[in-house]
Formats: sequence, structure tokens, C-alpha cells
Amino acid sequence: MAVNVYSNYPPELTSDQEDFLVQTVKNWSVEHALTVRPSTAIVSQEINTNNVLATNAPVTLFPSPFPKACFQQARCLQQVYNELYAAIASDQEWLEAVLKELIEVDDFLANLWKIHLAVKEEGYVQDLTLGLFRSDYMLHTPDDAPPSLKQVEFNTISSSFGGLSVKVAQLHTHLATYPSAKQPVAYPPHALFARPDKDSSNGPSINTIGHPPPNSAVSTLTAGLAAAHNAYGPSKSIPQLPPCILFLVQDNERNVFDQYALSTNLYEEHRIPSFRLPTSKILTSTSIPSKETNPNRPLIYTPPSSPETQYEVTVVYFRALYAPSEYDLPTSWAARLHLERSAAIKCPTVLLQLSGSKKIQQVLTSLPPEADHLQHFLPGHDASILSNLRSTFAPQYSLSSEGTASDSDEIQGVRLALSPTTAQHHVLKPQREGGGNNIYRTNIPPFLASIPRSQWKQYILMELIQPPTSAKNVALRSDGQVVRGNVISELGIFGTALWKTSTGSSKPDILHNTEGGYLLRTKANDSDEGGVAAGFSSLDSLILYEDL
Amino acid sequence: MAVNVYSNYPPELTSDQEDFLVQTVKNWSVEHALTVRPSTAIVSQEINTNNVLATNAPVTLFPSPFPKACFQQARCLQQVYNELYAAIASDQEWLEAVLKELIEVDDFLANLWKIHLAVKEEGYVQDLTLGLFRSDYMLHTPDDAPPSLKQVEFNTISSSFGGLSVKVAQLHTHLATYPSAKQPVAYPPHALFARPDKDSSNGPSINTIGHPPPNSAVSTLTAGLAAAHNAYGPSKSIPQLPPCILFLVQDNERNVFDQYALSTNLYEEHRIPSFRLPTSKILTSTSIPSKETNPNRPLIYTPPSSPETQYEVTVVYFRALYAPSEYDLPTSWAARLHLERSAAIKCPTVLLQLSGSKKIQQVLTSLPPEADHLQHFLPGHDASILSNLRSTFAPQYSLSSEGTASDSDEIQGVRLALSPTTAQHHVLKPQREGGGNNIYRTNIPPFLASIPRSQWKQYILMELIQPPTSAKNVALRSDGQVVRGNVISELGIFGTALWKTSTGSSKPDILHNTEGGYLLRTKANDSDEGGVAAGFSSLDSLILYEDL
Repeated sequence: MAVNVYSNYPPELTSDQEDFLVQTVKNWSVEHALTVRPSTAIVSQEINTNNVLATNAPVTLFPSPFPKACFQQARCLQQVYNELYAAIASDQEWLEAVLKELIEVDDFLANLWKIHLAVKEEGYVQDLTLGLFRSDYMLHTPDDAPPSLKQVEFNTISSSFGGLSVKVAQLHTHLATYPSAKQPVAYPPHALFARPDKDSSNGPSINTIGHPPPNSAVSTLTAGLAAAHNAYGPSKSIPQLPPCILFLVQDNERNVFDQYALSTNLYEEHRIPSFRLPTSKILTSTSIPSKETNPNRPLIYTPPSSPETQYEVTVVYFRALYAPSEYDLPTSWAARLHLERSAAIKCPTVLLQLSGSKKIQQVLTSLPPEADHLQHFLPGHDASILSNLRSTFAPQYSLSSEGTASDSDEIQGVRLALSPTTAQHHVLKPQREGGGNNIYRTNIPPFLASIPRSQWKQYILMELIQPPTSAKNVALRSDGQVVRGNVISELGIFGTALWKTSTGSSKPDILHNTEGGYLLRTKANDSDEGGVAAGFSSLDSLILYEDL
Repeated sequence: MAVNVYSNYPPELTSDQEDFLVQTVKNWSVEHALTVRPSTAIVSQEINTNNVLATNAPVTLFPSPFPKACFQQARCLQQVYNELYAAIASDQEWLEAVLKELIEVDDFLANLWKIHLAVKEEGYVQDLTLGLFRSDYMLHTPDDAPPSLKQVEFNTISSSFGGLSVKVAQLHTHLATYPSAKQPVAYPPHALFARPDKDSSNGPSINTIGHPPPNSAVSTLTAGLAAAHNAYGPSKSIPQLPPCILFLVQDNERNVFDQYALSTNLYEEHRIPSFRLPTSKILTSTSIPSKETNPNRPLIYTPPSSPETQYEVTVVYFRALYAPSEYDLPTSWAARLHLERSAAIKCPTVLLQLSGSKKIQQVLTSLPPEADHLQHFLPGHDASILSNLRSTFAPQYSLSSEGTASDSDEIQGVRLALSPTTAQHHVLKPQREGGGNNIYRTNIPPFLASIPRSQWKQYILMELIQPPTSAKNVALRSDGQVVRGNVISELGIFGTALWKTSTGSSKPDILHNTEGGYLLRTKANDSDEGGVAAGFSSLDSLILYEDL
């Protein structure tokens, strides 16, 4: 970085300025439904008996500066990533080979796999799959090198915050441009905001448009849902039923307004009706006709408020059932199987959900000559594209469970984990989904020494991403407290894909593949475990800059 | 009424239907900012320390049926009413004559009048006045006669709920038409909602569009503000300053989102910046140059968060300072004088505020030969229009303070008040603004007997409006409780006027006169004092019907 954009960012606030800015953000947030239902830590259940209260989502008061080149790289790669994960989810054999060892020790992955096997045996009746994805990255700046992009994870299920992130970008744009971009009342002057004197000596030479770029997350995601809805084709019911999309949601969801932003847009832009189905009601509110009645297995939704009017479900959009802890009812797994075997297009299928597991992410990093999975899954792409995509992988390794591992990758992993010098730059992550805590840095060697070597294979060693250390921001929490300090940001890029998997083929036929919209999440940089302890993990937007 | 539309309205709800409807209204309200800040009865100040929480505005679950002819009559009369009050506010001599007696006993009216006199002596520097009006009516159905419209009051200051009422109409329309008007999931079938079987035997023959008419209150009100802003002309400051509108607001306003709907629309549709000014900050955040510096008295606003950028105020829009209780600071009256003498267009001036007092409303009802105020103020209108307007007056009388009153109107008032038979149909209202409680029906004769006859003139006797008795609805309160029962509704029609008053003339030159948008407020019909005790006073919308 030629110029440290954080040297004087965000600008200092006088007491009057902070009062005005905070008051504006509080009211703007409620006015534009940049809101969440408050946690019981903010308002107890006794007071909020009828669950009517709402509060602002936790947001930063300022957008965070982000290098334009990295943002563009992430956007350019999104459609390639979409295609990669469509290909992975379509290759059952490859998935099975990679996940086999893990399925033996991880009940959650094992149960998902069993659902796939059960439906496979009965025969899938839907060959389309929809993915609403979010690829998450951090900036990596080891030893103050120019920032590069490293992928944290690729979300294949329940990618959230598309709805609210659009509004955060609008909020920060409002703050930077009201009543005019030349003289905003909420933000003090700063070189990163567009000002008439930006070419003068007021701050470093930075090229910026002065406010966040437009965020198209909502229209991108709903266009994906609409593409699947339309590709579903005519009703398979006898007699035919009107179509709908189901939003599968948690029973006590607090992030409802993020989801409503999508369902409302889906209706306003595409005239597609959708209904919210809590996971506890899957088996009571939906049904599949018996094989004898209708072998096509349409998924029928009966609204509890209007049981005389049934709908046929074209798409089940999962905003729930992604984590092991959500399968807490005796019927949870039966409900998941019920949905999977139906003719509704699943967003995602169990295979697509499995494709997003940490193990897959780690295996993809293997380099030739050991394996070149990117070449395998993306045969039609230039080497330069694959190389660009590969550059976003943070090095990660499985750990050999045997003393005589022949896999050079695993050998290297063990070596890096056991040496305090190299362990210093790594994190040890359990492979299990929804598993325990991460082990950081020099705690890794003694930890590995404390467990049986046979259990090492349950962990992945990952090189720690080193984000910029001087980034700062101020946030408004959902309880109204203002907190400030050093921060780490994570960029998410949204994308969607719809593809057909033909019987006997492991290659997807991609019908729809788009990129659009972003999320920036910013948390306190005060511990490896991040901002939860500090109560500072906020929705953010970005202000792009390029060094001149 | 040929058909009692309330005989089976609103439709009965099953438990599942009510759950779904209530849940939908709760979430829709927050998603669309049909919200208020909760009262301390809902969440105590200790819990809501940072004032971040919001909750749904109290709303009815269903729109209330309303006769189409009465709605159209109210709309047709609005521009005539706008003109009437512009004429009243322009006629200082008439106002003084009417209010003189009252000013002697009412400090509040007296202080307002003093401000007018002070500015008059100094000389007004702004000859434009803006009125954002709301004329409120109830349906009058004595002895089950066909419903007619009676005016409750004409608001000339702080006419509120334009922003939220637009959203209530949208909410009820959503509930009646999602996912389709033929098969809404939130409302059970009913003849008042458009259904394919509406011509069948399902319910009475009623002509309806099945959902509330569009509500243009926000665009009407902001167009009025914009008309005044543009009529203000170039900056009067030296050097010139950028223009803005000030929303004068209460320090602890809970109804902020109603106001934000206007300020946001004002910027989005008209690109006019506005700022919120709490009444406690009038004298610190605004200033008027000294006579020597600039005799034009521009009102200068200095945003506390950005003091280097000053604005010139084109319009002061009062959403505060309408009630005596708000003048609780030692500087309150000085602040009001400060605004009144400035060059900013006032919405309203003190003369326009005085024109909205109950006394004026009562005097207007005088009939020829005693006086024909309508003919005086609206000379250009057909007798039929004036007669139509007069038909909306509820009979009301001042009470003679002397035993030998020569005024036939006052004599009639005394006679009606003292007879238990006629008192039964009346209410006795204090003339003082913000005064005590009303005296109802047979309590009137003993009450008058208990006070000195010299105090009778402080009261107005008004014939009670007799609303339909069978109206019912269900409401969701801001604390999430669902209440139901017999209701009374009050219809408000919004209108705006901008006029110029020339020196020496008592006739306004009207530059802008519009009608648009409505409010329906519905409260429990369980006592003369209305729904406050029952905790049931809600924002509503209407579903128009005409008997076939």
C-alpha cells in the first residue's frame, strides 16, 4: 500500500458530530428496515412478550476503505467459483471419495450423505439445483506487502445478509451525500469522501468516488430464485396447483428483515409468491402425494391460515437447517429427507451443502502433481483464470493420521503444525461441521501432543490470514452503544447458479450463472476469536480506493 | 344504509388465521417503517437507554368499511376548506373580533395574539403563508338515518399521520391482495374483498374494489412544502446561503417515522434538504441578522454537526409548539416570536394557528340572518358548494354569559344545555386550547348549575355526532396485544394551501391549493371519552362501498 488510507480514517468526531451521526443512523435504520429483532440480552422475553420490538442491525458508522483491485478481483472470480461448486456438487464420486474418511467420524455429514443415498436409491425426480452463494474473503498483508485476497469460506447454504447489506451501502451513501456530496452534514471532511478540495493538500492522493459502490445483492439473489422458479416448468400436480417458493426459516429467527428484503423483492420484481416455513412445520404444512397417486412427487404447501388454497413448491430456499444444532427435533432428519426427495428445486441439495464443507475447501488447495482439482472441474478455463482463482486460496493442510503418510501435503501439514516457529502463523480447525473451537498459533504443538495421533485427521491446519493491522472504525451496536477501535473486515461476494445434472454424467449443465452484490462484515481486531467477546461485529460497506 | 355492511364484518378468524395475520402485520410494519418509538409503558427508559427500539404503530387488522359518497364529499370539500381557512387567517380584524373575548381568559391564545401584534408592529417581512391541513370528520347516523359527514375539527398546525396513513393503506392492500386478490392468504373470504364469487349469494350486494383506495398524503404534503420552498425565492442572506426546510419537532417525539416519511420524500422527489430542529434548540441553532446588517431577516440555520455550513430557512414546518404544554421553557415564547418575525415561510403563522381554534369553528356555524361567514370568506363560490360545506358542520353554540343575551344563537345554546332532554344529545367543551375535560349529556345541566354564570362563556355546546353503532374491528397495539370490539372511526382528509397576504388587504392571493390523501383513526366505542382507556386507538384505512 503506497498510502496508508487508515492513517487518519475514520475522521475524528466532535461530540455534536457524533450525536448527530448516531441519531441519524438510529432513525435511518428503522426507517429503512436495516433492523433485527433484539436479542434477549437487549430486551428480556418477559418485556418483549409479543415479539414486536425491533432495533437497528449492528452497523459501522463509516464505510471501510477497501482496495479497488481486490474488490474487482473478487467480483471477476465469482462466476468461476459458482461454476466450480456446481461441478463439485454434480460429481458424486469425487465427493464421496473426499468425504469418506470424515463421514466415519462426523454424524452430521454422515446424516446428510445418507439422505443423498436414500433419494438416489429411490431415484431423484428433480435434476435442477439452485445455488445462492457467497464467497468470503479477507485481505492478506503479510509484512506490509500489498494486499491480496484470501478466501475464508465459500457458502453454499443460507448465505445471509444480502438484504441488509444493500441497505448498509445505502445508509453510508446517504451519510456521505446528504444534503450534497460537497457538504454532507453527517460526515466531517475527509479525502476518502468526494469533496471539491480533494485534489488539494487535504490528505493523501487517493482515487475514490466518495461513497460505497451500488450493491445489487437483493436483485441478484431474487433473479436466481426467479430463474429456478421459471425453470421448474408447469405444475406436476393433479389437478394443477399455483406455484410458490418456500423460505425455510428457523423458528426463532431474529434476522427476519434480511429475509423479507428478498421475499418482498421477489414479489415486487418477479410477481412470485413466497411463504415462510419454519423448520418445525415442514412435515405438517407440506406433503408429497403417494407414488401411486402421483409419481412426480410435487411438494404441496398448505398455508395454515388458508388451508383451502394449496400451492406447489417450485423452490425450497434454505435459510435454516445448515448447522447440526438445528436438527434438534426427532423428526428433523425425516423432514430434510422429505424435502430432498420432492420435486421442488432445492437451494441447496444435500450434495451442494456437502460441497461447502471445510474439507472440500482444503482439498481444493492441493497442488499438482499431487492433484489438480481446478483443472478437473473447470476444464474450459484459461490457466490464467485458474491461477487467479488459486491465488485466493489460503494454504491449508490435512494432518496425517499415520506416521508413515505418503501424502506429501499431509506430511507438510504435520511439519508446520509441530514446529512452534511455523505454527505461529497457523490455525488448527476441527473438520467437523459445527464443531468445537479453533486452536491458534503456538497452542497448536502442545494441543496435538495432548491428543491421540489417530485423532489428528479430524483437524485442518490453515495458514492465518494477516489482515491490515491499522484499520479502524466506529460501530453502533443493536443496543445503541457506540464502540470503536481496530477492526478486521471480511468481504463477501454474492453469486447464483442454476444447473441441471444429467443421469450418468458428473458434469453440470449450467443454465444461469451470475455475480452481484457484496457484504462487508467488520469486527473488532482484539483477539483471534474475533469480535463476539467485544460485542462488535457489524454490517459495513466499502469505499473503494486506488493508489495514484 | 340499505345494507348493514358490519353485520358480518370483519370476518371471523380461526386461531391459525389470527396467528398468521398478526405475525404478518408485525413484520410488515417493521419492514415498511409503519413504526413508532415505544412508550415507556411498553419498555422502560432503563432498558431502552439509548432509544434504539421501535415497534409497530397501533393498527387495525382490517380496513374499515366507509360509504363512498361520504368519502368523495370530504375530498370535494377539501380545497374549499383550504380556501376558507386561508381567508380567515388573512382577515386580522375578523379574527380579533371573534377571539377578543376569549383572549381575555385564555393565556395561550393571548400569547399567540401578542406575537402577532409584536411582529405587526415591527412589520412582517414574509407575506406568504403555508397551510398543511387535515379536516377531520365522523359519520353521523342519528336514528339509523343514511350516514352524513360531520366535521370534528379542522387542523391548521402539526397535522400528523400523513406518513404512516399511507403505509396503513398499503398494509391493508397487501393483506387483501397477496399473493393474489382472488386468493389472499391473510384474509378470509368476505364480500367486501374482491373475490370471483362476489356476485353470488356470498354476503350482501356491495360494490367495492376490495382494498383501500391509494393514499397520496405524503406526496400531497411534500408538494405543498416544495411549493412554499420554491416560492420563497432567492436567498436573502449576504452572502447568499443554500436553502433548506426546517422540521420543528418535539424533543421526545415518538412519532418520528411519520415525520421521516415526509422529509425523505421531500428530498427524493424534490431534492429539497431538510433538518430536524427540536424546539429546545430554536434559539441556539437559528439566528436572524441584526436590522443594520440585513433588514430582510433571513432565518439562518447552523447544523450543530457541521457549523461551518450554514443554511437559509425557506419554510419552518411546525410539528411542535401546537399545545400550551409545549411552551414549558422560559424561552419558549421568545423562540416562537423569533421564528414568526423571520423571513421564513411559516407553516403555520400564529394567525393561521389561531384560525384553527375551536371558537372559530363554532362561530362559522352561525346562520343567516345573524351572520353568513361562509358567504363573506368564500364570495366566489356557488351557493350549492357553501351549502354542501355547511352540511358538514355539527351544530354548536356559545353560551351566553348574561341573562339578557340578545344573541339568538347564544340563547338557543343555553336552552339546549339546561334541558336534560336536549342536553342528552350534546357535549360541553371548554373553549380554552389544551383545557380540561369535556362534559357529556345529562351531566351538563348540573355542571352549569355548579359554576358561576359568568364562566359559561368559556364553554361551547356541541351536538354529539352519532356514529354507526355496529362498526367492529380488531387492532394490534404497539405492545403486540390484539384487541377487538365496537369501534368509532374518524376520517381525515389532507390538503395544502400557499397564499400571499397583501398589506392593507384581508383577501388572500392563493398560489397553491391541493387535496390528497386520507387518515382513518379508529378507536374503541366503549365510552364518550373514547379509546384511550381501552388502549385501543389505531391507525386504519378504509374500504369504500356503495349500496347497489
